[in-house]
Amino acid sequence: MRKVVVIGIGMHPFGKFLDKSLPDLARVAVWNAIEDASISPRDIEVAYVGNSLAGLVTGQEGVRGQVVLRDAGLGGIPIINVENACASGTTAFRGAWLEVASGAYDVALALGVEKLCLPRTADSIKILAADSEIRLRDLGFQFTAYYAMKLRGHMEKYGWTKVQFAKVVEKNSYNGSLNPYAQHRTPLTVEQVLNSRLVAEPLHLYMCSSIGDGAAAAILCTEEKARRFASKPSIEVAACVLRSSMFRHPSDTTTPTTVTLAANYAYEQAGLGPQDVNLAEVHDAMAPAELYHYEELGFCEKGGGAQMIEEGRTKITGDIPVNPSGGLAAKGHPIAATGLAQVAEIVWQLRGEAGKRQVENPKVGLVQTSGGLVEDDTATAGIVILKR
Amino acid sequence: MRKVVVIGIGMHPFGKFLDKSLPDLARVAVWNAIEDASISPRDIEVAYVGNSLAGLVTGQEGVRGQVVLRDAGLGGIPIINVENACASGTTAFRGAWLEVASGAYDVALALGVEKLCLPRTADSIKILAADSEIRLRDLGFQFTAYYAMKLRGHMEKYGWTKVQFAKVVEKNSYNGSLNPYAQHRTPLTVEQVLNSRLVAEPLHLYMCSSIGDGAAAAILCTEEKARRFASKPSIEVAACVLRSSMFRHPSDTTTPTTVTLAANYAYEQAGLGPQDVNLAEVHDAMAPAELYHYEELGFCEKGGGAQMIEEGRTKITGDIPVNPSGGLAAKGHPIAATGLAQVAEIVWQLRGEAGKRQVENPKVGLVQTSGGLVEDDTATAGIVILKR
Repeated sequence: MRKVVVIGIGMHPFGKFLDKSLPDLARVAVWNAIEDASISPRDIEVAYVGNSLAGLVTGQEGVRGQVVLRDAGLGGIPIINVENACASGTTAFRGAWLEVASGAYDVALALGVEKLCLPRTADSIKILAADSEIRLRDLGFQFTAYYAMKLRGHMEKYGWTKVQFAKVVEKNSYNGSLNPYAQHRTPLTVEQVLNSRLVAEPLHLYMCSSIGDGAAAAILCTEEKARRFASKPSIEVAACVLRSSMFRHPSDTTTPTTVTLAANYAYEQAGLGPQDVNLAEVHDAMAPAELYHYEELGFCEKGGGAQMIEEGRTKITGDIPVNPSGGLAAKGHPIAATGLAQVAEIVWQLRGEAGKRQVENPKVGLVQTSGGLVEDDTATAGIVILKR
Repeated sequence: MRKVVVIGIGMHPFGKFLDKSLPDLARVAVWNAIEDASISPRDIEVAYVGNSLAGLVTGQEGVRGQVVLRDAGLGGIPIINVENACASGTTAFRGAWLEVASGAYDVALALGVEKLCLPRTADSIKILAADSEIRLRDLGFQFTAYYAMKLRGHMEKYGWTKVQFAKVVEKNSYNGSLNPYAQHRTPLTVEQVLNSRLVAEPLHLYMCSSIGDGAAAAILCTEEKARRFASKPSIEVAACVLRSSMFRHPSDTTTPTTVTLAANYAYEQAGLGPQDVNLAEVHDAMAPAELYHYEELGFCEKGGGAQMIEEGRTKITGDIPVNPSGGLAAKGHPIAATGLAQVAEIVWQLRGEAGKRQVENPKVGLVQTSGGLVEDDTATAGIVILKR
């Protein structure tokens, strides 16, 4: 397959925008990406649009991508609408990558857009519940419960503490305060986190990502087109992997997790290992989840996540910065926009454009996204490795 | 890119199955395809799942493919959920084709599944309305109105008549009567069609496809894997194309339609022309639409569609049989299952397995699917050319 590079990225800030529609959010991200890539919209030959929940929000279930891209001024090209819950944006990115890698098209757009904020918050929550496997939903099982259960497992097994969980929020809320696209830009102390409302033991309110609206986009192309178009340094897609959960007996603790299996395949595809990764954006829909993502991605041994946060290794100034964007908990989590926002952060970092949250001279960055829930495992794990 | 072949197809009959869920329908189609391909489910390396409207039907918006495939016994592979309204199945097929053609994976599953029948028919209709562009929906503009307008244009310009439209239904309802997977299996006369209730001039009830439930699946792989697995003759994917509508001024009658542009690109990809096509399955969501699809696909000159039906050229025994399966109007139209059911029909025909509706010795078959509606054009056109 051909080498694929990212030449443009764009975002609409994450937040609560009751007066903005899905096309309003998409248009800003798409045009920011087009401008960033120094291309004309007519150069885009194929588009993947990730959206998870607009069908339930607006009642427009079909051809969402065609509608939002027409509004952004794009038409006459193949438009593929993809969905993989929180990994919808990463799935759109992989689709665009495959089009270019395969030789089907030379220039591809990936867009992730989500509108979750409704005048009544309860309506948004009801829609989010649809994201988990339906039989579990009927039992009242929600994402927060799923994360809380996993974290309690680590607390019991490895002695992790709530103070350590709060330290993740302290780090990420500080990073988010430096990110103009983040929904929450107030740095929080460990005390503030632990004094916030308890949602599901051990999760407190400030550990949980919030409902939000937003969009993010990337433009991918061949090396040859990049030489013709781009004014900024191209970022290579070294690996792009999706994997869904498999059957696993609840008592099976030895088979690697879906995220680990996806990461291992991505390392193999890139010809790199965890030791080569200079920074990562991981899927901390609940901030403390970051700690077991460290081990799933091979940044530490099993159970070693809490020690990494204690030692400050994943701070912007650490040896392996994680979530310099603020992560989902600080940046906000408009479902399908998340994966492409993670890609955007890594691209900015690798280009040296991340401003006050710039990591020192990174060469390789990793994106990890989890999507949905089937029984007791993530339904989809997405991994993207980018390098300059 | 690599040559890709279809080695297995499977369907769940189309119809009204109030007691069956989305996984129930999917499971039958997937396992029929697995058995038809003589493979083990473990041989499937990646899956695309097309579904358009289940989010509004069941309230389960996210990771639908992961849920239905887990129920069918598949997991641990990349699962990509795609949506393109009535072309969702064709979009899933193209995704599976691209995975194999690109070299990313060797064996891919494409599934299209839809559940539309609800105890109250009015609830289904409300959901279907979401398939068209939202501003038009708010004006009360529905698919039937769109097809009626286009047909009235052809009546005015080329002198087409309602009797000719009824003759399409006569042909297709006869074909459908020979298809065990069809929802409607009663052959209808021209008189019966014209005496059925008027829906939107010139469309009568029996010209319109009905709400239905159903599923269809295909298994695609490399030639090398086909040699290892398949006991039945492999069918080559000679072309696989998607295209979305572009901006067009309503008064512009010279620019080719989205379907024509997609078909032309597919012919180029296959190195074939319309004269090489031995049979076709086209998107007659309203049966008379078949007539202008003839011209869009190059089977006749502009306005020549009515003459083709008059001369019987598109009957099973004609020189270019169209919709031997019965088409959407007779076979039923469970949105995302439709494109893959069209593929299934062409594969059966090319293998010589179509029983009483077998076309004589076909070598090349074409699938045309339209999906959704943005302003006054189809949102997506899909074309697949298959050959043995």
